[in-house]
Amino acid sequence: MSARAGIEVVAIGDELLLGDTTDTNGSWLGQRLAAEGLRVTGRAVVGDDDAAIRAAVESALGRAGAVLCCGGLGPTPDDRTRAAVAAVYGWPLELDESWLDVIRERFVRRGMTMPAINRVQAEVPRGARLLRNELGTAPGLILDGAPGLVVLLPGIPSELRWLMEHGVIEHLRQRLAPSRGRVQKRVLRVTGIAESALAERLADIEATLAPLTLAYLPSGISIDLRLTSWGDQTDAEAAAALDDAERRLSERLGTLAWGRGDDDLAALLGQALRDRGLQVAVAESCTGGLVAKRLTDAAGASDYVNAGVVAYSNDAKQALLGVDAALLQAHGAVSEPVAAAMLEGIRRRTGASCAISVTGVAGPGGGTAEKPVGTVWIGAAAGDGSRVQLYRLFGTRAEIRARACQAALKQLFDLLREETS
Amino acid sequence: MSARAGIEVVAIGDELLLGDTTDTNGSWLGQRLAAEGLRVTGRAVVGDDDAAIRAAVESALGRAGAVLCCGGLGPTPDDRTRAAVAAVYGWPLELDESWLDVIRERFVRRGMTMPAINRVQAEVPRGARLLRNELGTAPGLILDGAPGLVVLLPGIPSELRWLMEHGVIEHLRQRLAPSRGRVQKRVLRVTGIAESALAERLADIEATLAPLTLAYLPSGISIDLRLTSWGDQTDAEAAAALDDAERRLSERLGTLAWGRGDDDLAALLGQALRDRGLQVAVAESCTGGLVAKRLTDAAGASDYVNAGVVAYSNDAKQALLGVDAALLQAHGAVSEPVAAAMLEGIRRRTGASCAISVTGVAGPGGGTAEKPVGTVWIGAAAGDGSRVQLYRLFGTRAEIRARACQAALKQLFDLLREETS
Repeated sequence: MSARAGIEVVAIGDELLLGDTTDTNGSWLGQRLAAEGLRVTGRAVVGDDDAAIRAAVESALGRAGAVLCCGGLGPTPDDRTRAAVAAVYGWPLELDESWLDVIRERFVRRGMTMPAINRVQAEVPRGARLLRNELGTAPGLILDGAPGLVVLLPGIPSELRWLMEHGVIEHLRQRLAPSRGRVQKRVLRVTGIAESALAERLADIEATLAPLTLAYLPSGISIDLRLTSWGDQTDAEAAAALDDAERRLSERLGTLAWGRGDDDLAALLGQALRDRGLQVAVAESCTGGLVAKRLTDAAGASDYVNAGVVAYSNDAKQALLGVDAALLQAHGAVSEPVAAAMLEGIRRRTGASCAISVTGVAGPGGGTAEKPVGTVWIGAAAGDGSRVQLYRLFGTRAEIRARACQAALKQLFDLLREETS
Repeated sequence: MSARAGIEVVAIGDELLLGDTTDTNGSWLGQRLAAEGLRVTGRAVVGDDDAAIRAAVESALGRAGAVLCCGGLGPTPDDRTRAAVAAVYGWPLELDESWLDVIRERFVRRGMTMPAINRVQAEVPRGARLLRNELGTAPGLILDGAPGLVVLLPGIPSELRWLMEHGVIEHLRQRLAPSRGRVQKRVLRVTGIAESALAERLADIEATLAPLTLAYLPSGISIDLRLTSWGDQTDAEAAAALDDAERRLSERLGTLAWGRGDDDLAALLGQALRDRGLQVAVAESCTGGLVAKRLTDAAGASDYVNAGVVAYSNDAKQALLGVDAALLQAHGAVSEPVAAAMLEGIRRRTGASCAISVTGVAGPGGGTAEKPVGTVWIGAAAGDGSRVQLYRLFGTRAEIRARACQAALKQLFDLLREETS
């Protein structure tokens, strides 16, 4: 793909720079265009300022085959995009009577009279192509001439998306030779290994992947391995290369890789339980309800979630789970025997076929030399099999809780996979 | 403010251009810096490419007083930022032995050996100031020299924020002259009223607020009312105007407003319980552990959280909470008598002085004409006082669960406030 086939996005608005609005159009455009074999090669965000808009558009035109401007097409004085971009082309603004009629009629339909300030939304740079916007009063505008190709789109996400689908993508595909194939991605989700250790384990495979690229995207509770084919192969060639790479990575990773794409571990575990006709009950301490919460995030979770107990205090561990006071005394609440007793207790009280137990030090206080913050014992049981494991997790309290929860779900998931295989 | 006092942000990562990750650092930085009287005047997003990073940084240095680079500091080969920016300055990368020791030691604490590839994270451009990152292995780096001021930050939001608060903001304030007054904000958090009804109730006050502005920012579980002073008054004038406006809004809202700033309702409720020497136990069904999870998000929650039971099935409601089977049969699980029985059951089983119960239809399935999706019964008890209330919530399953949880926390919070007043 030549550099000139790239697309740059210029988002306009003080609210974006002040941070009152998060720019979600940028990520949507990146994904949507990649699916068409078109590539966003850069983005910029500028304020409601003629000189800044003009400079950003001219700079982007110097690098890219097309520039998409998002925002600044409203009726108020701080909407500068139309005028600033018309000046880049030296094209005067002229009133489009037929679009003015459309705006007027939309107000009438809502029982209102068009305010005078909306008139500027019918002003169009001479030579630009107007795209009807069925969801709002700012039309899309395509300027295709001397300095290059610029598309003006409203910043409101629903309107921007509608106009992309109704004219803009088609125009971009005709003007920018899309790459040979679409950009295609595969994602493997991995839990239970540090990013750097993962990269070392995969280094020799990674070295053989070109023209595919491999990215490591840590999310806090998992690492996403993203394989990307950038469109310089045909779709079929790319799919075959991705299949092969994904298979080799999966084999190397074994049970570390638990899912693909946007799989959620709690949902996969739920499906595994449902497939086997099993129900799970949870006894948790430091995660404080998070494991039960994640298991019940999915609709229909009542098929496989029996109950949960948040035994936060030692009293509650005794009263609700029947953990022996002597055991708590001898080993402390964060210990292998207590994790095992919680596991047994929740199964006995609920009769559930599967169980998870979690007890640990989430911090920031409560750590000792022997049991520092991040020390977590996790138990999982399915049928006759059970396992209690120690984890040493790091991060803030919220991160340790999230990671402990993910580790607990993973431990039961692995146990179910082993029992089946 | 001179143009040179502006700050530009360069975010680095193919995943941002592809749209797999939405750039939330940009909006956080905009807000956080505005609060310090510092202004973000432009943002750019570029891929994992040395030439693109270098061009974006050089271009930003030509306009702004400082450039913040976010991302690309990891240990893997696609992390290009350190080398690309060092090249802008012509500063060689040199190993920082003491940071290498920190990285090594962090791995050792987790019972691991540092993988060799992490070594690059201790490579520092000669002349740069290293900022210790307590949450990760990539340090912050401040390059302040011939071509200007550039700060390198990891892209992981928690690490970026931590480093901003521990060194970067201070350095920026010293080097860039802030505006006349700081941008100051006050936030009132409101739960239990629709946004449009709230706007109507406050319309007459809102009309008198200029030059302050009032924004309505619904978050799903509350509406934030944000008062902003934009820095054209002195800090003292602005603070007085904000005090007055906040007082008038609070009086009008009564108990609808439960907090200020970034208060968390669960944390405030926890503090109210701690102040009174009380403990709470939770019995929840449709929220599936979320109420217990939120109550235990705060450090030290063991002071006031006794236990939780997630009684997701009817069996669990009987076995763990002693809810009468006949009651479930006669009224159904989502009913006032069952919410009351769950409230009584969890107090009896745990002996806790306060309790919350939640039973409802979170959807998307399970609704009926009589009890549509969003029907939730919530009970709260403190001392001799107790109350069971019906809520009709809307939204997706996740939204209904989050709103039911917030309503439950609010109900106990209000009960405690009433008992005291």
